[in-house]
Order: sequence, then C-alpha cells, then structure tokens
Amino acid sequence: MQALYFDGKEPRYQEDYQKPQPKAGHSLIRVLMSAICNTDREVLRGYRPDFRGVLGHEFVGIVEESDRKELIGKRVVGELNEGCGHCIYCRSGREKHCPDRKVIGMEGLDGTFEEYFVLANHLIHVVPDSLPTEKAIYTEPLAAALEIPNQLHIRPEDNVAVIGDGRLALLITEVISLLGVDLTVIGKHPEKLKYFSKYAKIERNETDSYEVVIDATGSPGGIELARQIVRKKGTIVLKSTYAGSANIDLSYFVVNEITIVGSRCGPFRPALELLNKGLVELPEIELWKLAEYENAFASKAFKVGFDFR
Amino acid sequence: MQALYFDGKEPRYQEDYQKPQPKAGHSLIRVLMSAICNTDREVLRGYRPDFRGVLGHEFVGIVEESDRKELIGKRVVGELNEGCGHCIYCRSGREKHCPDRKVIGMEGLDGTFEEYFVLANHLIHVVPDSLPTEKAIYTEPLAAALEIPNQLHIRPEDNVAVIGDGRLALLITEVISLLGVDLTVIGKHPEKLKYFSKYAKIERNETDSYEVVIDATGSPGGIELARQIVRKKGTIVLKSTYAGSANIDLSYFVVNEITIVGSRCGPFRPALELLNKGLVELPEIELWKLAEYENAFASKAFKVGFDFR
Repeated sequence: MQALYFDGKEPRYQEDYQKPQPKAGHSLIRVLMSAICNTDREVLRGYRPDFRGVLGHEFVGIVEESDRKELIGKRVVGELNEGCGHCIYCRSGREKHCPDRKVIGMEGLDGTFEEYFVLANHLIHVVPDSLPTEKAIYTEPLAAALEIPNQLHIRPEDNVAVIGDGRLALLITEVISLLGVDLTVIGKHPEKLKYFSKYAKIERNETDSYEVVIDATGSPGGIELARQIVRKKGTIVLKSTYAGSANIDLSYFVVNEITIVGSRCGPFRPALELLNKGLVELPEIELWKLAEYENAFASKAFKVGFDFR
Repeated sequence: MQALYFDGKEPRYQEDYQKPQPKAGHSLIRVLMSAICNTDREVLRGYRPDFRGVLGHEFVGIVEESDRKELIGKRVVGELNEGCGHCIYCRSGREKHCPDRKVIGMEGLDGTFEEYFVLANHLIHVVPDSLPTEKAIYTEPLAAALEIPNQLHIRPEDNVAVIGDGRLALLITEVISLLGVDLTVIGKHPEKLKYFSKYAKIERNETDSYEVVIDATGSPGGIELARQIVRKKGTIVLKSTYAGSANIDLSYFVVNEITIVGSRCGPFRPALELLNKGLVELPEIELWKLAEYENAFASKAFKVGFDFR
C-alpha cells in the first residue's frame, strides 16, 4: 500500500509499504483523508530526531477491523497519544502527558500518511454522519484551540486578546468568540487579519489591556507583547512552541500576580460538536494525492492534505 | 514624635517628626508594634528609588481618631495599598494592583516606623481581643502566604512541594499544611529545615514529582528546580521577587501544559482567623526601641520589630 515514510532525513513515498495488522485493543483504519500539521513539517526539520516511520496524525478514516465491533464500518477521527496505561498521568486523565507514550507519526507508531494504519480503540471518536469528511479533518487542530477553555475559566464578561494571525490563531479566535467575550486579534498581516474581522476586533488602542491574552504567534516575541498588554492578576495562555529560550523578568509576573498557562493538544468530543453544529467556519482544505507530497508540503494554502478516496 | 525617615539614601531616626492629621475617610493610628519586612531592607537597597518618607508597613496599633467612629479605641492591623478608587483594578477587587496606588512606607505615604500614622479606613482590620499583639504582628506576612490558596484551588488529594527554607517558606508551609495535602519542603539549610519537619516532609526521592510547586527561594534558581519537579499539567507558584531576568525555555511549559502563577500580597481576614484560632505557630518576634534601628536591621532573628508600647 502507499505510505509516506520518514527515514530520519527526508520523507520517502513508497507504494509497497506493508499493510499493518491490528493487535488487541486496537483498530485497523482505512484512511480517507489526512492533513499536514505544522508538527509534520517540524519533524522534517528535526523536531523528532529518533523517529523513523510513516508521518501524519490528522485524519478521517473508516474502521475496517476492530475488537470493538460497534466501530467497524464507522467513519472516525482519532487522538494521537497512546499512553502506557498505568502511570500517574494515564491514571489521572493526562494520557497525552504519559512519559512513555507513543504518538502516531511522531514517536514509536506509524502515522496517517498511508492507506491503512492502526490506532488504540479508546483514542477513536466516531464522526457524525451529518459532518462531511472535509470538515471533520479539522477536528484535531480545533481540539487544540478548545484546550484553552478546557484549562481556563474564561468568563463572558472578560476581554481577551489573541496575538497572532496564522492558522492556529484563527481557530482559537473562532472558539473564543463563541464565549461572548470582548475579543481582539493582534496581528502583523492585514491580508490575513481580514479573515478575523468577523469574529474579533482587529484594531486596538495602544493603552488597552486584557484579562486574558493568548499567544499564538509561534515566536519568542509573543510573550513580551502579552506581558505588556495583560492586566494585573490576568492570565497569559501560551500556545506557541519554538526552539530556544526567552529571557524573562519573572519578578514582573510575581508583583503583578500574572498567571501563565501552557496549552497544547485538546479534547476531540467538543471539537466534533462545534464542527457538526456549524459553529466554526474553516477554509476548504487543499487536497493532493500522496505521491504529490512535495507539492503538498510546499503549498501555502491554509490547510493542505492528502486524499485517499 | 519618633520616626524612622528614609531620605533616599539611608534611614534617619528623628524625635521631632510631625504628628500627622487624618483626612476624611482615614484614621489616625497609634502604633503599638511594627515589624521589619524584607521589603523594608529592599527599600534601603534602592528598590523604591523615588520614595522619601517614614519606612515600615507591618504594624499593630490603636485607632485614636477616625470618621468611622466604631474604629476608635480598637486594636487594628491594616493593608498597605491605597488605590485611586475608580480604575478597573479598584473597581474589580484588585486595589493592590491599582497603577496609581499609594503604599505606606513605600510609595507616597508615610509608613509605620513612627508613633502615629494615617491609614485609609477601608484598609483597617480589627484584631480580636483574644489575639496578642505579638501574634497579630504576623498578619501581613501570613496574608501573603494565604494568597496562594486564594488564587489557586489546591485539593487535599494533591501533593505539593515548597522550595525554600526561609521565613516566607515557613509561613507558606504552615498554611498549606492545613489543607491536608502531601507536603514536602526542599531547602539547603538543615538547621532551618528542622523547623519545617512538623508540617512537611523534609526529605524527598530524586524522582518524586508534584502537582503544585511553590518557589519561595527568593532566587532565580528556584524556577528551574520547580520546572524539573512539577508534574505535567501541574502548577508552579512564584512567590520570589528578585532583581534581574531568568532565561526560560517556554516551550517546555507549553508542551507539558504547566501553569505558572505569580503571587504577592494576600487577604488579611483569613490571616487573622488562622492566628486567632492558633492554627499557625510562629517564632517570637525580637523587639527593639525605634532608636535602636541599626541593631534591629542587623539582627538575624526570624522576625524583628519595634516596640512603641
């Protein structure tokens, strides 16, 4: 079968990759569509130097074999982190933080840029029939945005700023705008910001301050702007990962009692809920055949993926 | 009257300092006892370069004049930050973060190292008759420790580590131990740590990790140890202020979804409650006459103050 294999240096398209067999507690999934995440690009840049295997983790597929019989034939999405099942993190609802976890397309498990792959049953979520595959493909990144209200009580009365005007910032802005807050987006690219104007203010007074500031810039400068505009006793949510350290005056955060919340992957069920209810609008995914992976990775489209149908 | 005046360079003992007059909404307080806080030492080292006036902010006194008649004759303690009364912070329960606030002994207002001083009525808390002055003098630093459970929901089921074995660490350890948590203190000085053993474990396994880690070291190294021992999805509380910046790998906090909470001054009412109920034990304050201020500032005792009685 077709697969995009990462050999530690570069991706390699194969037509003869071996179809996997599901073990107990796992399902065999036929991939319908799989999308490129920024993390896949980071793996290619060396983010996971020890990983060898098939890339990809955002997918929609059909369960073909499973020991959870009710899943067979269902269209599904799935989470990427498979924990050990018995550590403090797995036992306290934090499986995605298990130190011995495997991660599809990143750590110890083949990913979703292939025709068939295997996933643990408890990580699988059934897609409602009314939700098209082209929309369900957004479940994983939308879940990452939903991790913010999952971690933090944002009140309708709060005012909130999102820093950044990229993909993640748009998903976050749409999710946060559903809370009824006074929402502002701060970005550098007028051509991107126009997509945000439906959900948030895209202009601000220099002196405005915010109870909650979400850094989705993906660069070390985000935290410094966040520090400047967050209210005392307010909260900064960090959604950006990047290589390297930032130099920070921690006493400022103590004296002004500011909370900093690191935020990563999030809950799938509410993401499917919002997508199925049409409460978030997302640009159409640009689709390629897996063999055209070089064009796909080079594309500047908002969302790019592979079509296996 | 006697006062210890800071002229921008050093403290100056005066016997002829003018007794103040309370304005509307304020009370004249006769000081019974006033304690030296680390912040007073920092003011002497240049922490508030523009301040000129009487030092000190931890006190127990008697209200002698007030337009809140029920306060007259009462033994009281008081908070230090007087806000403008109309900004977003003053209107949302965050008066101590008002950007235009005055602070006794630090910013725009004479402090408590003098026989009489003036304080806004709403900052005054009456001391229960059953609570001796020598214990009530601990209200302000104990309130700072209580700011931690005021900001953060610490569950009895959690395990918590306090890093540091100084004064603030002891107050924090005593307050947190009341929550029933599994509590460990991490310090460098065996002679200090012995005071903590009644409230917390003072030894730990290298591999132990904690849901909540409180940095009360007062040094930039605290956050790095906190980072190493806090659980993923856990919380670090920063109680340390110090000059200078720390170099921090913020991506670690994002990937592991760690929350960092800056924490400063806290609530007086619960501090008086704990003191009056005898739920915290504190070393006896070492007392000096105000004229002996040089000995007082040089003392290494746990708590040092001035006796005006």
